[in-house]
Amino acid sequence: MFLEVVRSESLSHLSFLVGDGGRAAVIDPRRDCGIYMDLARRAGARITCILETHRHEDFLTGSKELSLLTAASVYHGGKSEFRFGNPALEGDIFELGGIRLTVIETPGHTPESVSYALAETRFSDSPIAVFTGDTLHVGGTGRTDLFPGREHDAAGQLYDSIFNRLLPLGDHVVIYPAHYGAGSADNTSGRCFSTLGFERRYNNSLRPMNRDAFIASKAGERRPLPPFCSLMLRRNLEGPPIMNGMPQPQPYLPDDFTGAISPGLFVVDTRSPEAVCGSYIPGSLALPLDRISEFAGWFIPYDSPIGLVVESSSLVQSAVSRLVRVGFDAVQAYLVNSAYAWGVSGRSRGCIPATRISGGTHRRNVLILDVRTPGEYALGSPAGAVNLFLGDIPERIPEIPRDRGIVVWSGNDDRAVIAASVLRMNGVESVEIGLGTRESCVAPECVMATT
Amino acid sequence: MFLEVVRSESLSHLSFLVGDGGRAAVIDPRRDCGIYMDLARRAGARITCILETHRHEDFLTGSKELSLLTAASVYHGGKSEFRFGNPALEGDIFELGGIRLTVIETPGHTPESVSYALAETRFSDSPIAVFTGDTLHVGGTGRTDLFPGREHDAAGQLYDSIFNRLLPLGDHVVIYPAHYGAGSADNTSGRCFSTLGFERRYNNSLRPMNRDAFIASKAGERRPLPPFCSLMLRRNLEGPPIMNGMPQPQPYLPDDFTGAISPGLFVVDTRSPEAVCGSYIPGSLALPLDRISEFAGWFIPYDSPIGLVVESSSLVQSAVSRLVRVGFDAVQAYLVNSAYAWGVSGRSRGCIPATRISGGTHRRNVLILDVRTPGEYALGSPAGAVNLFLGDIPERIPEIPRDRGIVVWSGNDDRAVIAASVLRMNGVESVEIGLGTRESCVAPECVMATT
Amino acid sequence: MFLEVVRSESLSHLSFLVGDGGRAAVIDPRRDCGIYMDLARRAGARITCILETHRHEDFLTGSKELSLLTAASVYHGGKSEFRFGNPALEGDIFELGGIRLTVIETPGHTPESVSYALAETRFSDSPIAVFTGDTLHVGGTGRTDLFPGREHDAAGQLYDSIFNRLLPLGDHVVIYPAHYGAGSADNTSGRCFSTLGFERRYNNSLRPMNRDAFIASKAGERRPLPPFCSLMLRRNLEGPPIMNGMPQPQPYLPDDFTGAISPGLFVVDTRSPEAVCGSYIPGSLALPLDRISEFAGWFIPYDSPIGLVVESSSLVQSAVSRLVRVGFDAVQAYLVNSAYAWGVSGRSRGCIPATRISGGTHRRNVLILDVRTPGEYALGSPAGAVNLFLGDIPERIPEIPRDRGIVVWSGNDDRAVIAASVLRMNGVESVEIGLGTRESCVAPECVMATT
Amino acid sequence: MFLEVVRSESLSHLSFLVGDGGRAAVIDPRRDCGIYMDLARRAGARITCILETHRHEDFLTGSKELSLLTAASVYHGGKSEFRFGNPALEGDIFELGGIRLTVIETPGHTPESVSYALAETRFSDSPIAVFTGDTLHVGGTGRTDLFPGREHDAAGQLYDSIFNRLLPLGDHVVIYPAHYGAGSADNTSGRCFSTLGFERRYNNSLRPMNRDAFIASKAGERRPLPPFCSLMLRRNLEGPPIMNGMPQPQPYLPDDFTGAISPGLFVVDTRSPEAVCGSYIPGSLALPLDRISEFAGWFIPYDSPIGLVVESSSLVQSAVSRLVRVGFDAVQAYLVNSAYAWGVSGRSRGCIPATRISGGTHRRNVLILDVRTPGEYALGSPAGAVNLFLGDIPERIPEIPRDRGIVVWSGNDDRAVIAASVLRMNGVESVEIGLGTRESCVAPECVMATT
Repeated sequence: MFLEVVRSESLSHLSFLVGDGGRAAVIDPRRDCGIYMDLARRAGARITCILETHRHEDFLTGSKELSLLTAASVYHGGKSEFRFGNPALEGDIFELGGIRLTVIETPGHTPESVSYALAETRFSDSPIAVFTGDTLHVGGTGRTDLFPGREHDAAGQLYDSIFNRLLPLGDHVVIYPAHYGAGSADNTSGRCFSTLGFERRYNNSLRPMNRDAFIASKAGERRPLPPFCSLMLRRNLEGPPIMNGMPQPQPYLPDDFTGAISPGLFVVDTRSPEAVCGSYIPGSLALPLDRISEFAGWFIPYDSPIGLVVESSSLVQSAVSRLVRVGFDAVQAYLVNSAYAWGVSGRSRGCIPATRISGGTHRRNVLILDVRTPGEYALGSPAGAVNLFLGDIPERIPEIPRDRGIVVWSGNDDRAVIAASVLRMNGVESVEIGLGTRESCVAPECVMATT
Repeated sequence: MFLEVVRSESLSHLSFLVGDGGRAAVIDPRRDCGIYMDLARRAGARITCILETHRHEDFLTGSKELSLLTAASVYHGGKSEFRFGNPALEGDIFELGGIRLTVIETPGHTPESVSYALAETRFSDSPIAVFTGDTLHVGGTGRTDLFPGREHDAAGQLYDSIFNRLLPLGDHVVIYPAHYGAGSADNTSGRCFSTLGFERRYNNSLRPMNRDAFIASKAGERRPLPPFCSLMLRRNLEGPPIMNGMPQPQPYLPDDFTGAISPGLFVVDTRSPEAVCGSYIPGSLALPLDRISEFAGWFIPYDSPIGLVVESSSLVQSAVSRLVRVGFDAVQAYLVNSAYAWGVSGRSRGCIPATRISGGTHRRNVLILDVRTPGEYALGSPAGAVNLFLGDIPERIPEIPRDRGIVVWSGNDDRAVIAASVLRMNGVESVEIGLGTRESCVAPECVMATT
Repeated sequence: MFLEVVRSESLSHLSFLVGDGGRAAVIDPRRDCGIYMDLARRAGARITCILETHRHEDFLTGSKELSLLTAASVYHGGKSEFRFGNPALEGDIFELGGIRLTVIETPGHTPESVSYALAETRFSDSPIAVFTGDTLHVGGTGRTDLFPGREHDAAGQLYDSIFNRLLPLGDHVVIYPAHYGAGSADNTSGRCFSTLGFERRYNNSLRPMNRDAFIASKAGERRPLPPFCSLMLRRNLEGPPIMNGMPQPQPYLPDDFTGAISPGLFVVDTRSPEAVCGSYIPGSLALPLDRISEFAGWFIPYDSPIGLVVESSSLVQSAVSRLVRVGFDAVQAYLVNSAYAWGVSGRSRGCIPATRISGGTHRRNVLILDVRTPGEYALGSPAGAVNLFLGDIPERIPEIPRDRGIVVWSGNDDRAVIAASVLRMNGVESVEIGLGTRESCVAPECVMATT
Repeated sequence: MFLEVVRSESLSHLSFLVGDGGRAAVIDPRRDCGIYMDLARRAGARITCILETHRHEDFLTGSKELSLLTAASVYHGGKSEFRFGNPALEGDIFELGGIRLTVIETPGHTPESVSYALAETRFSDSPIAVFTGDTLHVGGTGRTDLFPGREHDAAGQLYDSIFNRLLPLGDHVVIYPAHYGAGSADNTSGRCFSTLGFERRYNNSLRPMNRDAFIASKAGERRPLPPFCSLMLRRNLEGPPIMNGMPQPQPYLPDDFTGAISPGLFVVDTRSPEAVCGSYIPGSLALPLDRISEFAGWFIPYDSPIGLVVESSSLVQSAVSRLVRVGFDAVQAYLVNSAYAWGVSGRSRGCIPATRISGGTHRRNVLILDVRTPGEYALGSPAGAVNLFLGDIPERIPEIPRDRGIVVWSGNDDRAVIAASVLRMNGVESVEIGLGTRESCVAPECVMATT
């Protein structure tokens, strides 16, 4: 048998190609799905089925696209009504050469979530591994707040799925979840495998607690619920639009980039934070490459044509992939030589300075914004910083004071530079990036709402 | 400015990306046209126009496909009525940054053939190079027998185009033709550039001769006119079908390859001649990779689904490219591990032995077939060999004697193994490959027709 | 943390790059070790230590070469006296960012074998995985017959290592062995991971048995002990020669290949079995690419310069890698266009036919040789076949009958074509490849020795 | 025949692989010479000779390194005394299959400069192309000021070589020079081919003039003569040091980068100008990737170990290549995630702002430095700018005023950011990048020397 793990960095997403004897299944494919066909060819296997663990809320599924390319059948958990594919019900079996995938219904994260137990029958009918979707992660569990009003039911279902359906498979069973990097930002592991036994012992979310305690714990989780989740959920139910090949933005020189393109072009600058800081193109949204899928849906209108600013032309398709994964297909142009050409053309450009912030010693007349999540903020923040989550900035612009400089901080440059560009796009000109490590953080003071 | 030469081996075809200042033109694109977009990106240039030198008869143009991907406009010579694109007329100019392409009408090979003179205006308005299409090759000239009955007119036009339109541009002008490897097989050069002055002096086809002598010489050329030429010409006038991405054949194990696929699957074996000889899959057509575009149209029905046998999965897309270039889009499957898997599966397979042939000493009871063109045969062939051009074999099958072994010879293994497989497909079992170099050839004796 | 698995097909060997926080360890590197540096760069990690699980007997270690390139320190189990590197003793700890590798002494396969337990300390000090070297495989255990006369002691040590040192780590611990594809040829899995719990339950070698039964079972294993094992073991103790970059064989045309090169050139044909069958180059040894490392040491003199025949020039370095892994560094030349050019040049070449063999019905006057191992033969073979293990052919040549045709069979073409070429090199001309699946095998009759 | 052109961007250098019939010659190889072996393999040709057109002064030759890897012989013009290789004298002939390279002595740029005329003998013994080294460029001629005191002799020789040796070959002959982008910066072409006839007509340096006028014109050329030229010339005479594989710098996190490395580490920041501007690492030299070979020799001590700051790890080897080409082999480390990690680690970093400068309207209290060459400055510069060539900054530091801000301008960001970093390294803190196109330039006012 072979098992290939496909990591999609920008989504912290894992998908899998597993097969034997000339046939393969893909589990939870992303939308730019050429990689599965390449891997299947290298393995000499034909993709004959596509298995979804659940209806994703953070990206568009590639199952419909891949199905068209391969003629493979798609299967989803049977407890939601999909407009494409087939139901995978408890106990259903998929045989591929010498391996067998068995459906285990594990609702909670979504009502129709399923897991797939993997057995290599020449060794044993008992599973060696299980694909757990967003039911059980390495060091965490799936969120249960996707459907407002049903949080408690969902958390109870998740408890039952983990403790009564998955853990009984045995400590020795390897798990492959649909995401990596669970838990808080300070507690992530790039590891994409674990075992049921290891999680039973060391996953904080599963610490010896009864059903009620588990539900209460899940209810207390505070993570932003992006506005585009409902769109993703709806499209994944219907089947996302078919792309017929990836969008192919064309290279443009500065004059053409701003002129020849339709005036509504939304400019997304995918360069590194420091490059954006050194040469900010007025009006653009900064979205460093590895943050595109995570934040595009917060800031980019879904009906705008998109123009990219890139570090180099070799990165264009990486940026495009990260955009289509979350539903932005109208990527039409990119700026050749990016900010360099921009400056050489004599156009104005901005500079976003960086400033060190440390307990009490920084300049008085600034407001420090910690743009991380409330959950991260609660664990510590630079002295004097107030919390305004990055995704909430646009609607909170009127509250931003104009009589002081703004210093945005996120513990690294990524989210800070996004925040700085969002502020600049919205007319807040005096913005700096705050330098300073998480180690220097103190107990937080307040959230922006209270200023 | 930049100038990129794209060689398409299997077609002996040349196409070009030329541009400056962020814009580029593609000249005579092939149908698998992603390469032009990749090169343009690397050059930081947007493809804004697609220029055809003429209506190709040996492959399908990629201009319509590329136009859809880039929004670039297509231009053809104005003397034929195309159903897509725009006319390029004598003196029309295309400016791309600091370069200028000027249309020169050069009919002959086809009525609407044009050449494009290239000037880099910061040096001079006078051209540094000219794209000559099939009007003037390195060491040869375009064929003038595509339209039966008009050969003399066509040859006269070609003479005028070369001697009155191209050569006057000056000896110092570089030429870039649409094909390389002109002239007879023994006289080819892989060189894809030359100058008007060099060709004026050393191209045998242009040896000091007057218009009448030139016409007579062209009339005497004897090359096979493939049956699919008229199809290519017609489709190139209409605009070839749009592919929306390349065909993606799936890997199949032997059982599925022959069973699950529609029974009409036409099997094309693209492996090396020696691999086919060692393990011939009954019923398959041998077409070594670099001969696919040249011979597919002679043997494969245009309405059959195609299954490939390949050396390794990394070569599948190369084979697919070579097939779509000449209009075969229904490539559905390929055999995993090819003949190896076939043999291991216990299926029967054949062996095509090789035998040395040299003047008079070979076994008596065989018929040696020289499967090259009549033109090549006329220059010398193994002693005792008769000529039957490869492409003519299917319709001449009844004439093949069954009381003797057949030895096919082509000076190399490529065409011989194709011929051997065509004979085997048609029930002639006793076939061997003849080994022996061209050096050992003698004056030919007869063509097959007379046996 | 990150964990990259490097598969070396031709050796069925696994090596690993594991790290965190900008540092990485490599476990059991192969000799062509550029891949570890590439992976480390991609992970943004510096290789700071190189850990050997044991003194390999089937390939040369890359630890010394990699150490020179990276300045990383090498560690081996402390129970053998290496002439390079440092001892890794029970309980020694290697910390790399947030991961910890702990040495567990697990003698048996070799006296100094160690395993490395991997913990990700931000989750737990308890291990999530263990690198088991050749102590415990997926579905098997390491061989214990490397040091004649010490088989029983070695098997006893192996029992203690597995049952008393590894299994107590817990069912939930993932294992990463140094080889995949353990067990008999019919029972292999390409899987390169398992857990202690899964192996405890389903690994046939660990079936509930006491120490004595385990030792008896290991003593009964019958696998060929290649003659080059002692050389590998000795060189791995001393530290293999440093290559200073991979050998770079130059392309040669047939004339130069046989002429200009030193007359002692040993020709190795790495093409597919069917290509060798279709065009066998006299005097060459057939070694299909994926069998090179396994069989080179049986047939190639260690002091000969080597010339390659390859499918295409893109495969040259793959062949070179597979040769240097087992100590053949003098790869000087390769044949351009391989057998194709050979035939075109008019040189003689042979053909190795294939013939179907099935119970009793095949031609009488042949001897069928099953060239697999005695262990495989014992499980079933074509009717009438006698066993002569491939590696033993050279020394048994005088016993091969010349009055009958020889049909070599191995259940696939790989080993059969090697055997056929070895017979041809040694003057046995009438050789055919036997086609026929394992399914048609019957109880074996005899070994070659008895004919 | 085949002819491959290898462009080395950072050197504006051209080298060539040309061959036929299984053999190839390399002309003017660069030091990172793996590319020639790769191309030769793809062409199925063995490199059998290495031909130098002259002793290069701007980079180290790769001929000695390539000779060791291939066993090919090296040839130089016979008029200088090399310590390796063989003399190529007037009329010497190199035959490779069907092509012939003939030596033409063309002194001038250096005393031993030669050109190689290329004929494809199956067409004609007359050349189709000539490799002109630094004797004749596209749109320019080689410099004649390398050997002080011999400028007039050199210019006269160059005249004779071009007018009496090259041009007589005929207008139709293609030229392939050793550099592209000749002429002033505003007049460059990326074109790497031309013909003798085109240059005779349109190359400004060859405008109808007699020998004396040509000499006078060459004497008037004013280009900086880098301090490392004499070192390059000397090493190219002796044969540069052998590398035994490219340097392989290891990735380091910030702490290790500055700490664990020897304290004398010279930090070279190869990121884009805008990234350096956004996050300048104190003490580092900015050298954007494509400017490395051109400016490294002006600023980096030849005996320092080098640490790189890179945009991404995939660009490390590109930076290394550009450094070894000009003799910097001690590249030991690179900073992982570059400036990003630097900032996250809490280290201080700077910001180099950009400011628009246009005629008279900019801020009064600044000094605008035009850091281009005197030749470029003479053709126009921003109003008020004084000229201080980039390479001269270190020795002119004491003259830089400290009471005003410094704005560095070069018409693009590349040289400006290098200049800014050199000023910062030398204690001039108040530095900005001047934005503004060449189009806005006016007649220059003065050079720095006069302030």
